Amino acid sequence: MAGTDSTRPSVSGGPAIILVKPQLGKNIGATARAMLNFGLNDLRLVAPRDGWPNPDAEATASRADEVLEAAQVYPTTEEAIEGLHHVLAVTARERDSLKEVIAPRAAAERTRGWIQAGQGVGLLFGPERAGLHNDDVALADTVLTVPANPAFSSLNLAQAVLLIAYEWSQTAMQGAEDAFPLPGTDYGPPATKDQMARLFEHLEADLDAGRFFWPPERRPTMTQNLRNMLQRYGMTEQDVRTIRGMIRALVRAKGDKPDPGTK
Amino acid sequence: MAGTDSTRPSVSGGPAIILVKPQLGKNIGATARAMLNFGLNDLRLVAPRDGWPNPDAEATASRADEVLEAAQVYPTTEEAIEGLHHVLAVTARERDSLKEVIAPRAAAERTRGWIQAGQGVGLLFGPERAGLHNDDVALADTVLTVPANPAFSSLNLAQAVLLIAYEWSQTAMQGAEDAFPLPGTDYGPPATKDQMARLFEHLEADLDAGRFFWPPERRPTMTQNLRNMLQRYGMTEQDVRTIRGMIRALVRAKGDKPDPGTK
Repeated sequence: MAGTDSTRPSVSGGPAIILVKPQLGKNIGATARAMLNFGLNDLRLVAPRDGWPNPDAEATASRADEVLEAAQVYPTTEEAIEGLHHVLAVTARERDSLKEVIAPRAAAERTRGWIQAGQGVGLLFGPERAGLHNDDVALADTVLTVPANPAFSSLNLAQAVLLIAYEWSQTAMQGAEDAFPLPGTDYGPPATKDQMARLFEHLEADLDAGRFFWPPERRPTMTQNLRNMLQRYGMTEQDVRTIRGMIRALVRAKGDKPDPGTK
Repeated sequence: MAGTDSTRPSVSGGPAIILVKPQLGKNIGATARAMLNFGLNDLRLVAPRDGWPNPDAEATASRADEVLEAAQVYPTTEEAIEGLHHVLAVTARERDSLKEVIAPRAAAERTRGWIQAGQGVGLLFGPERAGLHNDDVALADTVLTVPANPAFSSLNLAQAVLLIAYEWSQTAMQGAEDAFPLPGTDYGPPATKDQMARLFEHLEADLDAGRFFWPPERRPTMTQNLRNMLQRYGMTEQDVRTIRGMIRALVRAKGDKPDPGTK
């Protein structure tokens, strides 16, 4: 309902659970069970290692097979989050994050507010062993970390999904009066992830032409930092249009005046 | 500390998890992991079906073996709860209960209060398949039920322990700085107002050159909107440097190819 593509499963009932490159079918099946235990049903898979459908997933899911049957498969994370307005990256480890880090309860409360406002929300989970790649974390607005015992944190994929889905279900029990105004909602509708992706492509192509990324081997890190920075800003659809207009104007500017250099 | 029998493992750190007639060793091991993930370590086993110690439990517990090694085994539930002050029976199904039924969050909050008052608390979990026998439920003061999807509730033993231990750990985070804090988020020093002002001047001069502000009479309103937008983003000093670098690169970008004459 919140997504721009009506063929995609509705996210009106809750956030999408997006497994990026999941390895074992049984973990996908256990994830489906954990979701359905707490009322989530929008499962998205990005490039599952063993293909799809997966008999191991079905065997483990048991009566949660309805979640597997409705699951959508995407070749890339970017495609899986298209049309969503808010993406949270679930990571277990501390990182030198340039993003806000929040816990499951706060994430659930925000998600409830966003979904009540008709906005699509997705939670990214990385492959079982390695966790999310920095490129995928860079696609998210916020990092979600389950605060476990630092001396022993062994949560597996389905357990992390279980705790997060549980917290989501708990917010439903608080009653509608808890809906709170979210920062940024006054500024107009937030940009969708594909609008942000097109902004990044546009900007980075022109920055390439202006030799911004230098030396070339630092380009991946620089683009990651750049995307992190821009995502932190909570841009609206109108912001993206304005900024793309500015990029076009800046590219036109040369020749009309001298290069300002390092003024 | 709370128990009357000083030979029993301390429950001062949290409630005792009491597995009544557990069947599979791997579920005992998974329970130990779930406990230690959220800082619980007092495991008690009542008449484990396959005896004790149990190699399957050890294999599954992995680095949570410290919980298994400290586990106490009792022939009856009555003996396992001796010396405790409060016992909650964890059951998945509704019963014609003559006891109060509460959810994990309320149970965690009460448990925190009891333990802070020096009172011992135990949570009873039944065998995997059948759940707690009514005779064991009768030993408890209160029933604890995890509110899952009524159309699909497939929580296994270790998952129920995980959610309850998680809620316990969450109560520690209220007010106190202890428990398991999240990594902080520090984007770096915020830009000063004069750094922002120089950014605006730089950007607007180049946008003028690219004829961004059009028609001219709308320039005052457009610059105001632009400055409002950029100020909303909470930019850091580093953000301002990055963005000014991008502006210079975009101005250089015209023609899509490097101009060797320009720096």
